[in-house]
Amino acid sequence: MEKLEHIGIAVKDMQLANTLFAALLGKPHYKVEEVASEGVRTAFFDVSGVKIELLEATRPDSPIARFIEKRGEGIHHLAFEVADLEKSIKVYQAKGFEPINPQPKNGADNKRICFLHPKTTQGVLVELCQEIRDASSD
Amino acid sequence: MEKLEHIGIAVKDMQLANTLFAALLGKPHYKVEEVASEGVRTAFFDVSGVKIELLEATRPDSPIARFIEKRGEGIHHLAFEVADLEKSIKVYQAKGFEPINPQPKNGADNKRICFLHPKTTQGVLVELCQEIRDASSD
Repeated sequence: MEKLEHIGIAVKDMQLANTLFAALLGKPHYKVEEVASEGVRTAFFDVSGVKIELLEATRPDSPIARFIEKRGEGIHHLAFEVADLEKSIKVYQAKGFEPINPQPKNGADNKRICFLHPKTTQGVLVELCQEIRDASSD
Repeated sequence: MEKLEHIGIAVKDMQLANTLFAALLGKPHYKVEEVASEGVRTAFFDVSGVKIELLEATRPDSPIARFIEKRGEGIHHLAFEVADLEKSIKVYQAKGFEPINPQPKNGADNKRICFLHPKTTQGVLVELCQEIRDASSD
């Protein structure tokens, strides 16, 4: 695990949240990106090298919509950068952590991602992510 | 807001959590500290400059005990370092954020702290913190 890459925060209304987090963090978001496959729209803020990723559902069956329905708005996940995602998934599985998607999928911000089930991480939804460096190998 | 100082995670059993997070983060915690006034025991991990603070209640009426009772274990708060805590509290109040404790209090890790109410931060419990540099001025 190389570093904390970002913190994901589930919000109901991205426009409202962008204004609020700009006031909180002292700077505006620097990009917005939709991940259609996950049913989310994301907005990114930078706080001295750590990204804050706001997540808004784009459809009712989106994992973010279900999260908000169950727990309300708030911190959704912590994402850690790894050097080799496939290898890390195997290592974490061997340690007893349960990948929600053992096959990496595409996330926002040019990443391949895998989530670890919060039931194996004491309630913390953990994302392992790796930057896609060569699109041709994807 | 200078930087993300730490991420607080509420856990039921610190001993169990320390083992699990050491496996997850790839290194053991580097210190344990009790904050009697808050009814919590804390353990700190470092991930490339960002601290992960595990929080275990030491009494049933501890805010952490109440959090776990209501929401289960998981991410509890995000703490941001500020240069001047008293000034920041006033600035955030003027922006519409509501301090839970307008008078700063002592937290773990040699910090003066103030929490912003999650109802004003879209569900995210935010801690503002400032290192105590001169104990005599406290």
